[in-house]
Amino acid sequence: MLQAYAASSIIYPVMQFHDLTETICAPATAPGTAAISVLRLSGPKAFDIAAALFLPRNKEMTLARAASHRMLLGQITDGSEVVDEVLLTKFVSPGSYTGDDVVEVSCHGSPYIQQQILKLMMDQGARMARPGEFTLRAFLNGRMDLSQAEAVADLIASNSEASRKMALRQMRGHFSDRIRELRQKLLEFASLIELELDFSEEDVEFADRSALSSLLDDIDDEVARLRESFSMGNVLKNGIPVAIIGKPNVGKSTLLNAILNEERAIVSEIPGTTRDAIEDTITLSGVAFRFIDTAGLRDSQDEIESVGIERTYEKIRMANVILYLFDASETSMEEIVETITEFRKEVGDEEEEKRLVLIANKIDLMEEIPHHFRNLVDLETIFVSAKRKENISMITDSLLKSAEVSAAGDEGAIVTNIRHYEALSHTSKAISDIRKGLDDQIPGDLLAIDLRSALHHLGSITGEVTSDEILGEIFGKFCIGK
Amino acid sequence: MLQAYAASSIIYPVMQFHDLTETICAPATAPGTAAISVLRLSGPKAFDIAAALFLPRNKEMTLARAASHRMLLGQITDGSEVVDEVLLTKFVSPGSYTGDDVVEVSCHGSPYIQQQILKLMMDQGARMARPGEFTLRAFLNGRMDLSQAEAVADLIASNSEASRKMALRQMRGHFSDRIRELRQKLLEFASLIELELDFSEEDVEFADRSALSSLLDDIDDEVARLRESFSMGNVLKNGIPVAIIGKPNVGKSTLLNAILNEERAIVSEIPGTTRDAIEDTITLSGVAFRFIDTAGLRDSQDEIESVGIERTYEKIRMANVILYLFDASETSMEEIVETITEFRKEVGDEEEEKRLVLIANKIDLMEEIPHHFRNLVDLETIFVSAKRKENISMITDSLLKSAEVSAAGDEGAIVTNIRHYEALSHTSKAISDIRKGLDDQIPGDLLAIDLRSALHHLGSITGEVTSDEILGEIFGKFCIGK
Repeated sequence: MLQAYAASSIIYPVMQFHDLTETICAPATAPGTAAISVLRLSGPKAFDIAAALFLPRNKEMTLARAASHRMLLGQITDGSEVVDEVLLTKFVSPGSYTGDDVVEVSCHGSPYIQQQILKLMMDQGARMARPGEFTLRAFLNGRMDLSQAEAVADLIASNSEASRKMALRQMRGHFSDRIRELRQKLLEFASLIELELDFSEEDVEFADRSALSSLLDDIDDEVARLRESFSMGNVLKNGIPVAIIGKPNVGKSTLLNAILNEERAIVSEIPGTTRDAIEDTITLSGVAFRFIDTAGLRDSQDEIESVGIERTYEKIRMANVILYLFDASETSMEEIVETITEFRKEVGDEEEEKRLVLIANKIDLMEEIPHHFRNLVDLETIFVSAKRKENISMITDSLLKSAEVSAAGDEGAIVTNIRHYEALSHTSKAISDIRKGLDDQIPGDLLAIDLRSALHHLGSITGEVTSDEILGEIFGKFCIGK
Repeated sequence: MLQAYAASSIIYPVMQFHDLTETICAPATAPGTAAISVLRLSGPKAFDIAAALFLPRNKEMTLARAASHRMLLGQITDGSEVVDEVLLTKFVSPGSYTGDDVVEVSCHGSPYIQQQILKLMMDQGARMARPGEFTLRAFLNGRMDLSQAEAVADLIASNSEASRKMALRQMRGHFSDRIRELRQKLLEFASLIELELDFSEEDVEFADRSALSSLLDDIDDEVARLRESFSMGNVLKNGIPVAIIGKPNVGKSTLLNAILNEERAIVSEIPGTTRDAIEDTITLSGVAFRFIDTAGLRDSQDEIESVGIERTYEKIRMANVILYLFDASETSMEEIVETITEFRKEVGDEEEEKRLVLIANKIDLMEEIPHHFRNLVDLETIFVSAKRKENISMITDSLLKSAEVSAAGDEGAIVTNIRHYEALSHTSKAISDIRKGLDDQIPGDLLAIDLRSALHHLGSITGEVTSDEILGEIFGKFCIGK
């Protein structure tokens, strides 16, 4: 019964549309010219196709005789001519990334050569893989669940220590384990409720209503905690949004450049490593900070605006950290207090979630820092010279404080994916419906509907419940070769 | 004696500057985000460094116990935390690309993760590899000679069947073998001449002067043949230069687009393969054609120029194939003949090396092709409508004829590298000096000087004779990771 119920909640139409008997191929490494490139071939014909194209250097060796995971030196030939000298590795199913028989060819990194070898693979019956199709196969072959597959994409896209760590943890199943555990408990209850329906005429209760109620509390707490973790998870994944605001000519673009330069110095310790040119994101101690709308700062020396116009408040609403910059050599204490008051009025309730840091710029123009600034307001104030790059590290230190919460969340699972967040929200709604049903002592068959809904939404996270539409949406965002 | 002489002609200062006891690391795949990236670690500490960072999934396994060329699944850790799940392969010296102990790490293709793993390798004592340093080591460790090392770079940069084929042949040593053979013969004579010097008081001739003379003829012929092959080799490597010329508004840009589209249709058979965006190069049956200075054609609909102005003749001088386009619906036979005469006057002696093809455009505007065009001049004339893409394939067929010479050269070695060409030119000069010396019956010690010069230049091609300067120049052009 329990088994039958579990099965009924799983939808498998995918298999109809995704033909696992096809053999697929694609480059697995980034496009462009390089020392080497790796091409992937996955499916039941992978070994036959490779054997037709590959001539091992060691004449005693054949692909069939080679052990799994053993790299062979040899040539790719088109029958008459050598196309390239390569290293080829076979991975025997299920011990491969996709779970299929897989061949990886490490060839010279010329886009032309890659194209020629892929063409030969296709001549032998392979077809080009669609975006994310290798990982989709890994999912369909049971090598990973859906949330783990999504984590592969996140891991590849990770650009900071925090985003890498979260993606890796999700890929290794920490998050899935937690979800599956909750779902399993709910599933046991659901099957008892369903069992009651079979014996409905006898008016028995197999499922202990008060135990269910306390389980619902547990699940609700956990789901709430996970939903709450999303705002931090999202911020860690995409970078903590920072806004630099201030009146014209206080030195906003100079400050931004000084902060970005501060990081450059650290990054350039590793020569030759290319770094993604997201010019306006910096990574400090593994946490990414994203400067909001810095295009304006760069195009014009200082954009013509002052605190008070709509655009600035838009930035403030999007930011977690606001650096309010003013010219300390020209600004009176009264002006500052007025600005802070105005700011607090506008931000209102959200203030607690945001950090406002005052940056007093142009200390190079001052003989000494006037005493009245020292105890300005109840806000952190940093005195800098953006032009002379003085005290900039105090700003980066301060930014890092905004990220300290992230360290605290290190233990539990963190939700970073909007799809998971939505599924958790639906679960939460279903749980509240079940609880209401319990309170109203509604019949078992109605309770079962809400339970099924909760199970469905929890199961959609890990892919125990899935549909073609969901899979298409998830894997369509991957790039080819993944 | 022979041995001593051979040794004296080899310069080994490289070893002083290139410390093979250092362990180097770099990404071997193209930069950017992808499914996987491969990092390379080469040098005596490669296995120690990898062992410190790598934790095999199979707890029974250690890196020390793993066989060469065997991929291991496991984790890269920084001591406390997992950085990524990877596949790691060790290659035991000398059975690796560089000849060193080598480790290749196949990690998730995030630039951030690559950077973290490289940083860990450096913390363990590796340093970032310089451009071409892996291949330089392969040369220093005797895994390939210099001309083969240069072919690796050519192979990676190859973007057509012809350039790929030439680079692969050079990498596999066809060209080096030929050069080494010539040099070996010359070396034997040189050592006999040197031997004579030791017995100079006895007035003996160990070296048969007439045999030397006939050897010089052989070498001279071969060197001349190789030098001649350079112009074809260079063209096949970089693409056959094609110029489209003609008066304004005859449809040059429309024709270029029609020709480029002809190729697009073929290329797009392989979906998803990225191709280098050299917009104005087409590859037909494996031969690249490079359109000269097409920027002008694209920016303005038709550049304002007519045959006769300097810019057009500049193009003609650079081209191997000239497509002279005219508006067949408006141009008289007299005009055409006049243009051809003018063209021949300008091109003069070079005409034989160039192909001029007349393209009569805008046949869509004509009711029939007038008879007087048919036997226009003694030149191939193709009637097309660039606008309606009619007969464009006749142009591509004609272009291919220009490349037929390449097939003929398939047997012998082809020089594609300007450095090799220069070395061959110096060799040729030295051979002519030796021959003159023989004719003038100059003493052995003077003959020996010219012989050494010829040996030096031949040896510089394969790297039997080399210097830091040459190596720096060659490998400095490689990218990092190669």
